[in-house]
Amino acid sequence: MTTTPIPTPAATPPDILRCAYMDLVVTDLAASREFYVDILGLVVTEETDTEIYLRSFEEFIHHNLVLRTGPVAATAAFGFRVRSPLDVDLAEAYYRELGCRTERRANGFVKGIGDSVRVEDPLGFPYEFFFDTEHVERLAWRYDLQGPGALVRLDHFNQVTPDVGLGRGYLEDLGFRVTEDIQDEDGVTYAAWLRRKDTVHDTALTGGDGPRMHHIAFSTHEKHNIIYICDKLGALRKSDLIERGPGRHGVSNAFYLYLRDPDGHRVEIYTQDYYTGDPDNPVVTWDVHDNQRRDWWGNPVVPSWYTDASLVLDLDGNPQPVIERVESSEMAVTVGADGFSYTRKGEDLPEYKLGHQL
Amino acid sequence: MTTTPIPTPAATPPDILRCAYMDLVVTDLAASREFYVDILGLVVTEETDTEIYLRSFEEFIHHNLVLRTGPVAATAAFGFRVRSPLDVDLAEAYYRELGCRTERRANGFVKGIGDSVRVEDPLGFPYEFFFDTEHVERLAWRYDLQGPGALVRLDHFNQVTPDVGLGRGYLEDLGFRVTEDIQDEDGVTYAAWLRRKDTVHDTALTGGDGPRMHHIAFSTHEKHNIIYICDKLGALRKSDLIERGPGRHGVSNAFYLYLRDPDGHRVEIYTQDYYTGDPDNPVVTWDVHDNQRRDWWGNPVVPSWYTDASLVLDLDGNPQPVIERVESSEMAVTVGADGFSYTRKGEDLPEYKLGHQL
Amino acid sequence: MTTTPIPTPAATPPDILRCAYMDLVVTDLAASREFYVDILGLVVTEETDTEIYLRSFEEFIHHNLVLRTGPVAATAAFGFRVRSPLDVDLAEAYYRELGCRTERRANGFVKGIGDSVRVEDPLGFPYEFFFDTEHVERLAWRYDLQGPGALVRLDHFNQVTPDVGLGRGYLEDLGFRVTEDIQDEDGVTYAAWLRRKDTVHDTALTGGDGPRMHHIAFSTHEKHNIIYICDKLGALRKSDLIERGPGRHGVSNAFYLYLRDPDGHRVEIYTQDYYTGDPDNPVVTWDVHDNQRRDWWGNPVVPSWYTDASLVLDLDGNPQPVIERVESSEMAVTVGADGFSYTRKGEDLPEYKLGHQL
Amino acid sequence: MTTTPIPTPAATPPDILRCAYMDLVVTDLAASREFYVDILGLVVTEETDTEIYLRSFEEFIHHNLVLRTGPVAATAAFGFRVRSPLDVDLAEAYYRELGCRTERRANGFVKGIGDSVRVEDPLGFPYEFFFDTEHVERLAWRYDLQGPGALVRLDHFNQVTPDVGLGRGYLEDLGFRVTEDIQDEDGVTYAAWLRRKDTVHDTALTGGDGPRMHHIAFSTHEKHNIIYICDKLGALRKSDLIERGPGRHGVSNAFYLYLRDPDGHRVEIYTQDYYTGDPDNPVVTWDVHDNQRRDWWGNPVVPSWYTDASLVLDLDGNPQPVIERVESSEMAVTVGADGFSYTRKGEDLPEYKLGHQL
Repeated sequence: MTTTPIPTPAATPPDILRCAYMDLVVTDLAASREFYVDILGLVVTEETDTEIYLRSFEEFIHHNLVLRTGPVAATAAFGFRVRSPLDVDLAEAYYRELGCRTERRANGFVKGIGDSVRVEDPLGFPYEFFFDTEHVERLAWRYDLQGPGALVRLDHFNQVTPDVGLGRGYLEDLGFRVTEDIQDEDGVTYAAWLRRKDTVHDTALTGGDGPRMHHIAFSTHEKHNIIYICDKLGALRKSDLIERGPGRHGVSNAFYLYLRDPDGHRVEIYTQDYYTGDPDNPVVTWDVHDNQRRDWWGNPVVPSWYTDASLVLDLDGNPQPVIERVESSEMAVTVGADGFSYTRKGEDLPEYKLGHQL
Repeated sequence: MTTTPIPTPAATPPDILRCAYMDLVVTDLAASREFYVDILGLVVTEETDTEIYLRSFEEFIHHNLVLRTGPVAATAAFGFRVRSPLDVDLAEAYYRELGCRTERRANGFVKGIGDSVRVEDPLGFPYEFFFDTEHVERLAWRYDLQGPGALVRLDHFNQVTPDVGLGRGYLEDLGFRVTEDIQDEDGVTYAAWLRRKDTVHDTALTGGDGPRMHHIAFSTHEKHNIIYICDKLGALRKSDLIERGPGRHGVSNAFYLYLRDPDGHRVEIYTQDYYTGDPDNPVVTWDVHDNQRRDWWGNPVVPSWYTDASLVLDLDGNPQPVIERVESSEMAVTVGADGFSYTRKGEDLPEYKLGHQL
Repeated sequence: MTTTPIPTPAATPPDILRCAYMDLVVTDLAASREFYVDILGLVVTEETDTEIYLRSFEEFIHHNLVLRTGPVAATAAFGFRVRSPLDVDLAEAYYRELGCRTERRANGFVKGIGDSVRVEDPLGFPYEFFFDTEHVERLAWRYDLQGPGALVRLDHFNQVTPDVGLGRGYLEDLGFRVTEDIQDEDGVTYAAWLRRKDTVHDTALTGGDGPRMHHIAFSTHEKHNIIYICDKLGALRKSDLIERGPGRHGVSNAFYLYLRDPDGHRVEIYTQDYYTGDPDNPVVTWDVHDNQRRDWWGNPVVPSWYTDASLVLDLDGNPQPVIERVESSEMAVTVGADGFSYTRKGEDLPEYKLGHQL
Repeated sequence: MTTTPIPTPAATPPDILRCAYMDLVVTDLAASREFYVDILGLVVTEETDTEIYLRSFEEFIHHNLVLRTGPVAATAAFGFRVRSPLDVDLAEAYYRELGCRTERRANGFVKGIGDSVRVEDPLGFPYEFFFDTEHVERLAWRYDLQGPGALVRLDHFNQVTPDVGLGRGYLEDLGFRVTEDIQDEDGVTYAAWLRRKDTVHDTALTGGDGPRMHHIAFSTHEKHNIIYICDKLGALRKSDLIERGPGRHGVSNAFYLYLRDPDGHRVEIYTQDYYTGDPDNPVVTWDVHDNQRRDWWGNPVVPSWYTDASLVLDLDGNPQPVIERVESSEMAVTVGADGFSYTRKGEDLPEYKLGHQL
C-alpha cells in the first residue's frame, strides 16, 4: 500500500461493467443469515455450512454477496464484473505493472464464478475482476417472492481511504468517472463518487483511516420499500440496527438508509439516483460545510457513520493495516468547536440541528 | 386555571365531532403565508391584510387554520366542531358549571363560522365550540391543484399541560376517549392521546410546562407526500425548518414529520394511523423507557421537541401564564445521566443511538 | 321481501358502529383459503375443517370474514357491529316492527361473537347486529407479518337491489347517511353509498337484480399495496382473477381493484376515500352518463361487473329469490346503442374508450 | 426504404449512448404546449413562435423533445446521442455505405445541438446522431419545481415497422442489443426491444404498417407519479387522453401509461425496468399468446394501440409512405375469431377478459 502518487500504467485497463459482488467475512454465520436473509430478504442462491451466496431480485449472475465464516469480520474482496474474458487478462497485467500482488484462479475464488484475478490494489483494497459466471433465474417478475422491502439490485460499494485525491486519480486511470465529490475551499477532497455503469457510482471513496470498507449498498424500487425495512426492524425490536436515516442524500439525490449487520458491517439501502452515462455528465461538487450535502434535509450524520468501518483483507486473508488520514476529517470540520455547517451560507443553524443533539 | 382535581359537571357535555380549526397568532403574516401557502400548499379560502383563512384539500368547512397578525405568537383558540347548534349551548353551560370564563358570539369570532362559544378551560386553554360554518368547495377531486405534498385533512392538536392525568380526566368527562398513553412503572403519565372522530386523536396531552400549544397536525394520503415536503424544503434551502423526522411513530403507528413555522409554532405532517371508533377500542400503553414509543425506528427525539411550545391566549388575548410541570419530564427519564431507554428491555442501546449524539 | 314502500318504524334504530364482518359460503374451502390467505394475506384468527375466520391487520375484533363450506356460494350474513349490548335488543325490536323474520342467539351464530340477532331485512338481505366479540391482537405494528399488499381494514359491503331509492330510504331510517349517489336527469337512482363510520360507506346499494351481494371491500394503506396485489397475481399466473382495475373511482375518490374469488364472489381492494363524519357532510351526486363517475380515468367498466353478483341466504340457509330490476340498468344507459357516456358533457368519446373495446 | 435484407456495413458503427430527443411536428403548438407543459409538466428550455424545446427534470442536455409547428403531425427525427464528435463522422459513413440518404449540418438541425447528421435509414425512419449539445441545469434537486407527476428522464422510442426481424438485424449491426421480444411458435417476431444504455430499451420495434412512430416514453421515479397523471387528467376532464393503462408490462417489467397528445402522437409514461448492461444479459422471449406479455395483469390492449401510430418524415420534410405488414398482426393472432390468448397455457380466459369487452 502506498500514499505516494500512483503511476498511470501504460497497460490498457480492463473494461469494467459494474460492481458485482462483495466477499464478506462474518464471525457468526447464523446471525448474519438472519440479518441478510430473514430480515433483508436477499435471495439465497446456494449455501454451505461456512458460506452463503446471496443475490438481489433482479440479478442474473450467481450472487451479489458472499457471507463467509472467518475469525475476523472483514471484506475479503470487492468484486467487479468486466466485459469479456480478455479483460481479466488486462486487469492482471494492469496491476502487475502497478507492482501490485495479484492472484489468478481459473476456477475462481468462490462458487458460481470462473476465471478471475484478485489483487491487492495500490490503496490496499482487495479487488477482484471476473467475467465468467453462472447465470441464475432473474426474479424480477417473481412478485410472489418479493417482500415489501425487496432489494432489487446491488448498487455500489463505499471504501474508506486516507487520501481521497490519490485514490480518485488511481480509479480514474482504471476507467472510473467521478460524478460528485465533497471539497472545502482549500481544495481538500473529503469524498468522491465514481461510476462505471450509468448510475452515480459503482464505488465511492470516503476520506478516513483506511483501507477499510465503509458500506455495501443495495437498491429498492421505491422509497416506501426502505421505510418498510425500518418498520419491520421496529416490529422485530431490532431498530437499533438502524444507524442513520432514512433520509435523502444531497450527493446522488438518492433516498437512503444505513444499517449495521451483526458484525458491524454497514449496509446501505438506496433508491433513485440519476443517469450518468454520458461522457460529459456534469460533475457536482459539494461544499463540505453545506449541511444538505450528506442529508438533503439537514438531519445530522451520527458520529459512528464517520468513524466506524470494516477491515479489509490481503490475499492471504490477513487484515490490512489501517493508515491514518492526515487531512482534516469531515466530521471535525463540520460539527463541534472546530467546525461548522450551514443551510444557507453565512447563516447559523437552529439549535435543534447539528452540534446540539442529545 | 387549576391543578387541583377538576370536578365532573352534572351538565351534559357537548357532542364534539372533531378538531376543526386553530386560531393562530403570528407576528409576520407575509412570512407565515410563505410557509403555510407557498411551501405547505394549504388552500386559501379568503384573506385580508391581517388574517388568512386556510383549509386542507378534503375540507368542506370554511377553514382549518386562521393566521392572524398579533404582537405575540400564540394560539388564540383550539376550535372543535360540535354535532348541532344545540351543542354550543351545552358547551357554554358545561364550562359555566366548571366555573370557567366563557364568551358567546352569535356571529362567531372569525369569518366563516357562526354562533360559537369560547372558553378558558380548566387547564388554561382557549377552546372554541361551534356548529354553524360556511361550506366551501371540497377539493378532494381537484388533483390539478394538489401538489406532491398535498395536505388533505386537519388531523389533530397537541397541548402541553403540567399534569397529564388531571387533563385526561377532564377531557374524558368532556367526551373524549383515550386511545394510547405513555406511562412509567410508577404510574406517572407522560402523554395521552384522546379522540372524538375515528382516528387516534383529535387532541393529545403532552406533559410539560403549560398551558402551551405543542403542535397542529395535517395529514397527507401517503408517506411519499411527507418525504416530498422534506425534499422541497431542501430545494428551497429551508431544511432548517425540519425539527424532527420524518419517522414512524410508535404511538399511533403513523408516519410523521415536525416542522417549525417562522414564529416557531410546530406543525406536524402525519399519515396512516388506525380506526378507533369502537367503544371498546383497545388502549395502548407505552413504557416511557421504550425507545420505539416516540419513534418506532429508535431515532432520537431532539430536545427542542420536548422543551419548546407556543403560548396560548386568554379570552382577552393575553398570554396565559405557564405553570411548571412537577412530575418527571420525559426527556430527563429517557436520556442523559438520569434516564435510560431500551430497544429490548434489559439491553443497552448501541452508541449511535440516544445519549451519544453529536 | 318487498318492493312496496318500507314504513319507518316507531322503534328506535340500533346505533350501528360499522360494517364488521361477512359470513360467506364457499364451495371449496381449500381453494378459498388459497385465495384469501395465501394470495391476499388475510390473517387467520382460527379455523376448522369447515370454517376459516379471517381478519385484517388493524382489526381487534375476532374476524372480518368467515369462510364457511356450503353447497351454494352465497352470503349468509352482512355483520354490523352496534355500540352496546342494548343496541342488539333495539335491532331485534326494530325489525320485528318492520315485520321481518329475526333470529336471536345469545351465543352468536359464529365463533368469536356473542349475543346477536340476524334478520331477513325488507330488501331480502341477511343482516346481523352484534356488540359482544372476542378481542384479538391488533397487528397494526406487526410489520414483520405484513406483506407488500397488506389488507389493513374491512372497509365496506356492496349490495345489489332492484330499487335503490326504496333501499336508500330504508337504510336512512336505520341510521345510515348517504354520502354519494348516481342518478340520471329523470331522477332514477342507479347506486347510493351509505355510511355509519366516518368514511364514504359501510355499505352501498347498486341497482340490479337482487337481493345479491356485489362485493366486500378491504383497504390498504397506500396505492402501491394494491398494485402489488396485481403484480403478485401476474407472478402466480392468476391475473385472470382481476376483473376490473386498478383505477381511481370518481365516486368516493378511492383507488380500487376488483377481484373474483374461486366461487366468483367479488372482492374489492380499496384505499383513500375521505372523512364524512359531519352531519352536514356534502352529498355528491354523479350523472350516470359521466364517464368518470365509476372510473375517474374513464377506463371502461367490464360488463360482468354490472351483471354478476352473489346470492344471499335467508335465515334457513336457502338462497333468496332474485327479483329483476325494473328501472333502466346503468350499463344499458351508458354504453352501446341505447346509452352514452361523456368525459365533457356534449362531446363524444374517442374510439378507444367505451363502446369500442375488443 | 427496403424490405429486402439489409447488408452489414464494413464501416464501424457509431458508439451510440442513448436515445436523446425526438423532433416532433405538431399542428397546433398552443394545444401541444398545454399538453406537454401545462399537463405533463415538461421543462421548457426555450421556445419561439414555432418551436418549443422541452426536457425532463434530470436531463442536462438542451432538450429531450422539440415541438415544431407543421402541416402534418409527424416525427421529423429520432435523435440519438453518440459518445464523441468522431462518432458523428462514423454514423455518416455508416449510412452512406448502406446507400441511405444523409444530411450533415455543422450547426445542427435544431437549437442547442451542434454538428449532427440526419439519415433516412433502411427502414425509412429519420435518425439523427449528434454529440455536441448545450448543457442546461439538471433540475434533479429542484423539488420545488417538480410536480407530483414529474417526468425525470426520456426513456425510449418505439417504432412501427412491417418486418421486425429485418429491423432487428439492422439495429443489432448498428450496435443495439435485444433485451426482450415477442414471438410465436412459428418464429414470427411481433416486437423487439433494443438498448444502448443500461435499461430495457432505447428503442423498440413494433410490428405493423410502417415506418411509423409508435410512441415516445418518459420516466417517473415511482408508480404513484404515473397514477397522479391519470388523476390530474380526470380533474381537468381530459381523461379521454388516456388510451391504455396504467398497468404493469410483462415485457420490461415496467409500470406504464399511454396517452395521446392533441395530434394523436402517443406518449408513454414509464417506470422501473431493470439493469441490462452486461453483454450476456439474458434475453426474454414472450409467447405472443401469453396474455400477460403486454399487460402483466391481463388487462386488454385497446385496438387503437395496435393500429394507430404517427407518420415519420423524410429529410425533405415529407411523410414517408407506409408499407403494410405482411406477417400476421399481433392483434389478429391474440383476440377475436382468429386469435387466442391464455393466462395459463391451455386454459381459456374468463369472460371479463380479452374478447368479451364492451
